[in-house]
Amino acid sequence: MSETVAEGVEALTLNNAKETDEQVVTGEEVTVGDDQNDVVDPWNVSSTSDTGIDYEKLIKRFGSSRIDDELIARIEKITGKPAHHLIRRGIFFSHRELNTILTLKEQGKAFYLYTGRGPSSESLHLGHLIPFIMTKYLQEAFDVPLVIQMSDDEKTLWKDLKVEDAIKLAHENAKDIIAMGFDVEKTFIFNNLTFMGQCPAFYQNIIRMQKCVTFNQVKGIFGFGDSDIIGKIGFPAVQAAPALSSTFPFIFGNKKTHCLIPCAIDQDPYFRMCRDVAPRLGFPKCALIHSTFFPALQGAKSKMSASEQNSAVFLTDTPKQIKNKINKYAFSGGRVTVEEHRKLGGIPDIDVAYQLLKFFLEDDEKLEEIRLAYSKGELLTGEIKKIAIETVTPIVERHQAARKLVTDEVLQKFMEIRPLKFG
Amino acid sequence: MSETVAEGVEALTLNNAKETDEQVVTGEEVTVGDDQNDVVDPWNVSSTSDTGIDYEKLIKRFGSSRIDDELIARIEKITGKPAHHLIRRGIFFSHRELNTILTLKEQGKAFYLYTGRGPSSESLHLGHLIPFIMTKYLQEAFDVPLVIQMSDDEKTLWKDLKVEDAIKLAHENAKDIIAMGFDVEKTFIFNNLTFMGQCPAFYQNIIRMQKCVTFNQVKGIFGFGDSDIIGKIGFPAVQAAPALSSTFPFIFGNKKTHCLIPCAIDQDPYFRMCRDVAPRLGFPKCALIHSTFFPALQGAKSKMSASEQNSAVFLTDTPKQIKNKINKYAFSGGRVTVEEHRKLGGIPDIDVAYQLLKFFLEDDEKLEEIRLAYSKGELLTGEIKKIAIETVTPIVERHQAARKLVTDEVLQKFMEIRPLKFG
Repeated sequence: MSETVAEGVEALTLNNAKETDEQVVTGEEVTVGDDQNDVVDPWNVSSTSDTGIDYEKLIKRFGSSRIDDELIARIEKITGKPAHHLIRRGIFFSHRELNTILTLKEQGKAFYLYTGRGPSSESLHLGHLIPFIMTKYLQEAFDVPLVIQMSDDEKTLWKDLKVEDAIKLAHENAKDIIAMGFDVEKTFIFNNLTFMGQCPAFYQNIIRMQKCVTFNQVKGIFGFGDSDIIGKIGFPAVQAAPALSSTFPFIFGNKKTHCLIPCAIDQDPYFRMCRDVAPRLGFPKCALIHSTFFPALQGAKSKMSASEQNSAVFLTDTPKQIKNKINKYAFSGGRVTVEEHRKLGGIPDIDVAYQLLKFFLEDDEKLEEIRLAYSKGELLTGEIKKIAIETVTPIVERHQAARKLVTDEVLQKFMEIRPLKFG
Repeated sequence: MSETVAEGVEALTLNNAKETDEQVVTGEEVTVGDDQNDVVDPWNVSSTSDTGIDYEKLIKRFGSSRIDDELIARIEKITGKPAHHLIRRGIFFSHRELNTILTLKEQGKAFYLYTGRGPSSESLHLGHLIPFIMTKYLQEAFDVPLVIQMSDDEKTLWKDLKVEDAIKLAHENAKDIIAMGFDVEKTFIFNNLTFMGQCPAFYQNIIRMQKCVTFNQVKGIFGFGDSDIIGKIGFPAVQAAPALSSTFPFIFGNKKTHCLIPCAIDQDPYFRMCRDVAPRLGFPKCALIHSTFFPALQGAKSKMSASEQNSAVFLTDTPKQIKNKINKYAFSGGRVTVEEHRKLGGIPDIDVAYQLLKFFLEDDEKLEEIRLAYSKGELLTGEIKKIAIETVTPIVERHQAARKLVTDEVLQKFMEIRPLKFG
């Protein structure tokens, strides 16, 4: 219900191509209010609270819906197995129209997955894995095709990065994504700066979308200003267009196929815009499943950042580097002295080592044991960090081994324009 | 000299990507001032004067240079024949850096021609021929390759026109252009909505340009506002990108080849923007040769318009329609009565029949005879209209005959991505 109401508000602000300033969602409104000092947009995520962003408030502000127990039960019923731990633990916590997608699955109707990455650094960090872990789970659980956008054009526009270098980063990052084990028969990866010149349908859909959205609207949704470059102003349509199945005629023919987008919630503004425009172009609105942010080692006030070496565990880090980084930088929810810690217990909610376990330790029972022991003061900071290191290190090592096998030829196969297999 | 000064001003307003409002050329400044009530931008051309736009003032405002006798003499020396009558008669009256191009020709160095058309109607009118007549003359006189942009994306964004229909119009209009006799070995025609998806270099150059230009700048240059759709805001880079030779790697390889653009002067804002950006991307500034506007049958206060049937002689009109239109609508510079006309004489400068002859009657002596006879009152309105009809009708008939020979296969050849022959 809350979704219906919120969608109504969204439609009101976006439906009219020639609106006045007053009708538009302002940049301020899509971030969490000043009372909280949470900032959430596609380029900035920060909070002044040690527990990080207030996601309940964010759901209300964005007008999305909470993934509640009922929805989780439905996922489990339809897929015939337990929901992914990232869903069970509230890390993927919010959605738009996931119910519609589940109904399609029940009816044996097709849909596809769309996710992406802005390639701004050569090596990915642990946080980058989260949307792809969820995407891989969804691809396997629902047996559906997947398209992955590498927005090298976005990074060229936003960063001090040349076209050629952005394309190289896109290819390197795509190899990391492939290393996670996606099915080549059901997965198409593309980088915008190349794919735009290979598929006229992509640009044509961008033009159709750019015809439906005014500067006032992107100003409201994304906070763009008059001194922003025109490339930024047009870009939202580039990220939104792959949510229309006709962008990929070689996969979907002329079928209007539904789309489900797993992403961190900071990417929601693109798809709110897209959900408004799609029906006007005769397409279904994309569905979304949103994650919280992966905390920086320094704590949940900010997210892991590829441009800050010590904020993140990188997928290229050695076991020694991982150990040092977590021991040195991971924000602790423990007490100042051992005595105090034994007496009062640690605070898992703000403890980054515990958060790493929440994201990566699949065993629910073991995680709960750790949480209790840490809360009671039985487990010390050094000890929970050790468990985190032991959990994360093999994941990074396995990734590095898989990454080595992703040759240019393998990359080429994933990026080749071709039909995909439907389940 | 005047060019150097004007370019300096242009550089000042455009060079800085993060400028303030005050530094920007305003929309008002690129049109001719209020004192005159001339409006000139890529979407509007009108004047309150019977003789039409004051082109001397326009040259000053735009900061371009007049094509003077010295420059015409240089063209004739280098090409070894008389300059085209559209140049001799001041219809192509303004330029930017045409001297640079002539020097290249003298040195035996390569350059290319770039022109285009926004396909908004199925049938072209006489006015549409002008830039292409000049382009054809330049291609033959200088023996250089030519690229022609059909901006179907622009028309989709600006008009009530669907993507599919704009592409069809682009193809139909391209056939009319081909019918003018361009050399297929030296001419590449492309429509944006298709070519964007065939050549990654095009989009890559657009992104490079869109990274150098702010909303404030396009607001100043093109008069865009906050309620304009984002497609319009980004479009200037799409029209500007073909002035960088690297947009066509299949023609120019990785050579940075100079570009000369023949166009009506209302298109100059795109290329002023381009001339500012090109050096920052390591490319030479494009040169331009500008024409005046082709008057509507109703007179020089407006230009011929494809959307107003009675304002124009269409290339699909029958001899009877041409005769009727000119007789009925062509604004006359003659007097109210025959007696008065014989006594005072007609006014060729505001007479549309005479203007048609100035554009299309190649024989200078005959044109001068007609001008004198009309000015003296020896030639009556009906008589000069008859000469105009007899001049224009065979041109339209020849065009129709040539147009019939342009099959889909011929069109395909011109639009095929391929190397071009250099002179």
